[in-house]
Amino acid sequence: MTFEEHLPAVCDSSCPVRKTASIIEGKWTTLIIRDLLGGEKRFSELLRSLDGISPKVLTERLKFLEQRNLVFRTVYPVVPPKTEYRLTEMGEGLKDVIIAMSLFGQNL
Amino acid sequence: MTFEEHLPAVCDSSCPVRKTASIIEGKWTTLIIRDLLGGEKRFSELLRSLDGISPKVLTERLKFLEQRNLVFRTVYPVVPPKTEYRLTEMGEGLKDVIIAMSLFGQNL
Repeated sequence: MTFEEHLPAVCDSSCPVRKTASIIEGKWTTLIIRDLLGGEKRFSELLRSLDGISPKVLTERLKFLEQRNLVFRTVYPVVPPKTEYRLTEMGEGLKDVIIAMSLFGQNL
Repeated sequence: MTFEEHLPAVCDSSCPVRKTASIIEGKWTTLIIRDLLGGEKRFSELLRSLDGISPKVLTERLKFLEQRNLVFRTVYPVVPPKTEYRLTEMGEGLKDVIIAMSLFGQNL
């Protein structure tokens, strides 16, 4: 049976592609995950890497990813406080999506 | 060298993940591609499958995918005219992204 034949005929809320889309379809979301695949990063590092994102949107996206258990935030009790973000085990599960996006993007 | 080490340090417009994201990050886009992996479909079939999409948004997304050379539209000269959509060879290239999304979504 091919992948296509395995897909549910109708793309409703039970469809696994739709479940993933509901997480990654926001602008910047996959790019934040891409950045964190390289390891823990500070907010300022993400802001520098994601050329064009605003601090407001980065904050919103990180909060969303934290709520969905894909990103874990650690606040280090130093002065000034240091906050770092890393992928959870579940977040790491998106690596294959990012790899497939990277391969496709090489031909664009 | 791991995948992470291959990634550009900064996610600017030359990053392949970002190029792909610019195509698939709109709501519904990956789901339209998912649907067309199963073969050519009429507008009304897509509308039925994509539970919750409006005709207006479906039209916009299909037009965008056509402009990006990912979807090909065929108008059959019958009465009433029949319009079908299928993935181009380039559009088929997104199959691995959809497969990775489907595998991830099975654990959500």
